[in-house]
Amino acid sequence: MTSRNVGCVDPSGNLDRLFCPRSVAVIGASDTVGSIGGKAFSNLVAGDYAGPVYPVNARAPQVAGHRAYPNVREVPGPVDLAVVSVPLPHVISTVEDCAAIGVGGIVMLSAGFAESGAEGKRLQQRLKQTVHDAGIRLCGPNCAGFANADLGVRANFATHPLPSSPSGAALATQSGGLAGFGLPAAAHRGTPIGWWISTGNEVDVTVSAALRYLVELASVTVLLGFLESLPDPDTFVAAALRATELAKPLIVLQGARSDLGARAAESHTAAIAGSTVVFGEVCRQYGVISVRSLEEMLDVALAFQADRRLEGAGVGILTASGGTGVMMADAAAEAELTVPVLPASLQNELAVLIPTPFYGSTHNPVDMTGSVSRRPESFAEVLGEMARSPDLDALSPVLFHASPVFVQGLLGVYRGTDKPMAVLATVTPPELMDARVPCFPDPWRAMRALGALYSHARAVASASPTWPHRVDRARQARARAILAGRAGPMADERQALDLLSAYGIGVVEEILATTADEAVAAFAEIGGAVALKVRADQLGHKSDLGGVVLNVSSAGAVRAAYAQIMSAARRSLDGFAVRGVAIQPMVAASLELAIGVVRDPAFGAVVFTGLGGVLIEIVRARVGLRPPFGPPSAHRALARLLDGRLTGSPRGLDPRQQAALAQAMCAVGELALELPEIVSLDVNPLVFRDGRLCALDALVVVDGEVAGGNRGATADARAQGRTS
Amino acid sequence: MTSRNVGCVDPSGNLDRLFCPRSVAVIGASDTVGSIGGKAFSNLVAGDYAGPVYPVNARAPQVAGHRAYPNVREVPGPVDLAVVSVPLPHVISTVEDCAAIGVGGIVMLSAGFAESGAEGKRLQQRLKQTVHDAGIRLCGPNCAGFANADLGVRANFATHPLPSSPSGAALATQSGGLAGFGLPAAAHRGTPIGWWISTGNEVDVTVSAALRYLVELASVTVLLGFLESLPDPDTFVAAALRATELAKPLIVLQGARSDLGARAAESHTAAIAGSTVVFGEVCRQYGVISVRSLEEMLDVALAFQADRRLEGAGVGILTASGGTGVMMADAAAEAELTVPVLPASLQNELAVLIPTPFYGSTHNPVDMTGSVSRRPESFAEVLGEMARSPDLDALSPVLFHASPVFVQGLLGVYRGTDKPMAVLATVTPPELMDARVPCFPDPWRAMRALGALYSHARAVASASPTWPHRVDRARQARARAILAGRAGPMADERQALDLLSAYGIGVVEEILATTADEAVAAFAEIGGAVALKVRADQLGHKSDLGGVVLNVSSAGAVRAAYAQIMSAARRSLDGFAVRGVAIQPMVAASLELAIGVVRDPAFGAVVFTGLGGVLIEIVRARVGLRPPFGPPSAHRALARLLDGRLTGSPRGLDPRQQAALAQAMCAVGELALELPEIVSLDVNPLVFRDGRLCALDALVVVDGEVAGGNRGATADARAQGRTS
Repeated sequence: MTSRNVGCVDPSGNLDRLFCPRSVAVIGASDTVGSIGGKAFSNLVAGDYAGPVYPVNARAPQVAGHRAYPNVREVPGPVDLAVVSVPLPHVISTVEDCAAIGVGGIVMLSAGFAESGAEGKRLQQRLKQTVHDAGIRLCGPNCAGFANADLGVRANFATHPLPSSPSGAALATQSGGLAGFGLPAAAHRGTPIGWWISTGNEVDVTVSAALRYLVELASVTVLLGFLESLPDPDTFVAAALRATELAKPLIVLQGARSDLGARAAESHTAAIAGSTVVFGEVCRQYGVISVRSLEEMLDVALAFQADRRLEGAGVGILTASGGTGVMMADAAAEAELTVPVLPASLQNELAVLIPTPFYGSTHNPVDMTGSVSRRPESFAEVLGEMARSPDLDALSPVLFHASPVFVQGLLGVYRGTDKPMAVLATVTPPELMDARVPCFPDPWRAMRALGALYSHARAVASASPTWPHRVDRARQARARAILAGRAGPMADERQALDLLSAYGIGVVEEILATTADEAVAAFAEIGGAVALKVRADQLGHKSDLGGVVLNVSSAGAVRAAYAQIMSAARRSLDGFAVRGVAIQPMVAASLELAIGVVRDPAFGAVVFTGLGGVLIEIVRARVGLRPPFGPPSAHRALARLLDGRLTGSPRGLDPRQQAALAQAMCAVGELALELPEIVSLDVNPLVFRDGRLCALDALVVVDGEVAGGNRGATADARAQGRTS
Repeated sequence: MTSRNVGCVDPSGNLDRLFCPRSVAVIGASDTVGSIGGKAFSNLVAGDYAGPVYPVNARAPQVAGHRAYPNVREVPGPVDLAVVSVPLPHVISTVEDCAAIGVGGIVMLSAGFAESGAEGKRLQQRLKQTVHDAGIRLCGPNCAGFANADLGVRANFATHPLPSSPSGAALATQSGGLAGFGLPAAAHRGTPIGWWISTGNEVDVTVSAALRYLVELASVTVLLGFLESLPDPDTFVAAALRATELAKPLIVLQGARSDLGARAAESHTAAIAGSTVVFGEVCRQYGVISVRSLEEMLDVALAFQADRRLEGAGVGILTASGGTGVMMADAAAEAELTVPVLPASLQNELAVLIPTPFYGSTHNPVDMTGSVSRRPESFAEVLGEMARSPDLDALSPVLFHASPVFVQGLLGVYRGTDKPMAVLATVTPPELMDARVPCFPDPWRAMRALGALYSHARAVASASPTWPHRVDRARQARARAILAGRAGPMADERQALDLLSAYGIGVVEEILATTADEAVAAFAEIGGAVALKVRADQLGHKSDLGGVVLNVSSAGAVRAAYAQIMSAARRSLDGFAVRGVAIQPMVAASLELAIGVVRDPAFGAVVFTGLGGVLIEIVRARVGLRPPFGPPSAHRALARLLDGRLTGSPRGLDPRQQAALAQAMCAVGELALELPEIVSLDVNPLVFRDGRLCALDALVVVDGEVAGGNRGATADARAQGRTS
């Protein structure tokens, strides 16, 4: 048997020998109670794995009744996978033994590496170097191993019995213990997980790489990921794009979202998390379903496992309690689904089926009231009629009784339709769990799961467009904004605005005055109220230092403001080269926007857009995109802002303004990619002036080292730090 | 036995004979299978009720082996409660029979009233009049009845077996079916509900009245309410204030929150819901815990049922999986709890208890890793040490194994501490459910429940302050703003601003010009840029009609603007008396606020405050308070705006500005109470100008009928319509 027989593929490197091995050695296998290697070996042999298995134990001639070998070098056949649990002093020599006999992959269960201090960090670095040099793929260390549902490989020391049936859902997680808690929870929920991979400290294989591997497997139809850190965002994005291409949902829970969680993760797998906001935005950009709890993950997985897609929003609710129907309808609305009123003809048909006297409703929710108990068969009859209605895309019946007439009736309707169903039931009847009918104990959970089906059906994950890296533009921008060779923050607003100009973004004009008379002349030339701003190198917080006077509308006031600014400059700006005072027109705008670039520890450059002015801090309404991206992605992101009200409200942006803003977002994305020395960019406020975008102020922070020409070095250094 | 023996009290009317009866008749009791009256009688006799019970059946001499009576008038003893299920044509005569023998309360199970059309509405009106005239208290019609856990009264036709033990949680709901779904769900969840009351169409007793009744019962420690409508907000507020006074949590789920849900509710109990936003705000104002799903309600109830209060935010998390610990810590942060790092001394003690080798963490989350399995007793030992730590206020252990050493160990620690606990367990072990140890299958649900304990401990429900109803002020305001006798919307901005002035709120000054020369003179007098606005009676949307020109900063431009406005007035304003053009200074403000009054169908006047300008529609950041309220309530509301950033951010409001805004909110609340003819008030924008609040524009809508002097008539009419 080769791994190819079960459709294993490895788009990103030779992972097949690791995850689909033709033979397995367990180094550190023993009969000692509580031993990790012993547990791993007994898990392996308790599974359905058909290939040869070799326990390796330095002293014992037998383990669990199998002939044992003192060293992996003594094993009589080739070894694809070595599962290793040995004391730390033996780790490196064990890997060297594996290398000597051509082992393809190692699962390193041993702990005590980077998560446990400086010495562990050094050992981890040696481990990394050793497997790299030997060309061995490594899962771990400090992991729980993996399970391959296709071949029945249990290369792990999980405590709970594992499902033996290959199922549609697969889980990738750094945490082995999460697998330990999550697997029984999933089985209990009716979503048994067949394939799972725990990556631990991620010396080699990451959660993203595991997802990228799992997404190609024919037996895997639902992908689950728990990410405490994300050292390889490009692999994550590749897995997401591939999942969309294959119409497989990728459902992820970000761990270490909070400072508290991040602290816990650091002592757990020595991981440093990126920003939660960025993570959520990137998930939306690439069609990934981001959930916030394990339960939500399993609920959504349950709905997807039924393998029915929801193409429309109309849910038919069937209840015998009006109040429960109200809760279901409320939950449907919150999940952005609809509960369409049924056509009169269908209502008439339903009314015929429901026993009289009947004071409920046939509108939808269909409320049969206690009348249903007069003839329980009517429940399935009514549900069946609803299933046949072209006006309904999904069904959500309330199961009040677990008696056979209801359960079997419901099951019959389920089998006779291809519409998704979300049943409300306090306890899932075993018949429905066996038949994979998604059941939920709460109206909100039922509708949230259906809502995920519906929004996934509509999600568009655009592959990143070709990015027209224009070297000339970057060179020109560097020249105009004097980026080259600069160290520290670049605070000269004019240079920041020039940088935007080079990328085609409109900026406010100004006249530089070096005397009060020049300032007054500039005021006259501009006409109307003006702003006066000091121009000096390397100066932040110029407002706080008295370097800015706004809304000046007379020659006398301009003269006074000029004097005030120069006086403040003399007082505060020692050591800064004051080049003069810029006179800019005041631009009134009812809506102030902002656009910016951050460098996320996980995802690198991300472009944010949202409300600006002082509200940027107070409202915090913003959307983010990872460049490169094109106008369609930018438009979709804008449409999410403030629940769609920035683009949908009459007081918001009109279509031409939206197009201009989307274009500016793309331009800023290209700027971020072409000028990696820009650590952060904040354009705020950004307003519409006579119908055109105009940046009124901008702040750029430059990393001098990167500006020196070592493109991307800082980002690389950060990525290095993360998995140390 | 009298109801007083079990501590029943009735602060709001004589409900004791209804809910704590000394004798019960069931009218319509029968042995017919599927009959509602038969089910009600069998439920009653299957319970622990010790008083006399009388089945009433027109034809059968016996029901369920009990001597039956042809009419309630024939019953041999006094009847406190009559449970009625009769065909609709007999409803009124049955109530008259009850009245004749002095029945104290009726539970009307029959359906077919207002929920089923015009004829049913008329019958319901007759029923209402009949019980009112007879002085009988009525629960229903179209309800499922109630259960009294203290006396064992099962005056209902619920299908599921009811818990016989009087428990701490009580439920009030309009929907009988919800009780049917909710009761088994609650029992399954470990929160058995003893007392419950279903109020149906609420001809007399409402959910609020039921809550107000239940809150006084010694046996009831947790109050649950499901509200599809709220016809008596004052009773609801009274129940909430009393619950706070007695330190009993009131946990409510609003039904019919969405349009979809409201439509379902209307065909269910003919109820019209108030605004969800208002409901949530009023709950916060009065210390009510508002949840959004049944499951959340039961989770939170479970935490409160343990009867341990959480006075601090510090949670101690104990796990054997780092990833699960990360999820717990994330969830704690989202629930606004903390996970404090344990002191070094305690960490050292824990490290001694945990079997080696140990590569987990003692920081908190305490992650014992797989090491725990080497000596399982160490789990309870570590948890016990954490329970003794003064640094931790609550404990949240993860139960990975349901084996006795873990379950009994955990139970021992629970019994030895008075700290709240939220256990994470896929399935709740029966021992823990019996001992009422709150267990949750998901990290977020565990922490959300602890978070509810903590926020409830800090909630302050201020009794409404004395409201200084100043008749003179109201009279003066009416005179200045020419409210009296006016019909239709009052759109004159000046009058609206004058109204605010009368309540002590600063407004922008203006000079009325009736010629272009006067306008130019006004511009010169004001100095700086000005706004010109047409002044005409009964004119809305003056901007759209060309009646407003903003930001005019030269004499020539003023003259042009004046001409433009008067031209627009001649063109568009036929039939409106143009009084001139107001010249106002332009007031620049980086932060535009808004304040307003709405009349909610349920709660009446509510004052809203939030961001203004064009953002009022786009951002929708606002908080609401039901007047009367004092400055402390206003401050607490402001502190909730935008997650606290409007008051907490350096770019937000400083303390003096906050105090001024709180004062204005109180004033607007008094205005809303003193001037009921004001249907709505919108002050937008409201800005700070030289440190003082200044309203720049306002729109008032007046109800002419109310203004005619019939104070409150419209609100009463609305309330009438709701329960029709």
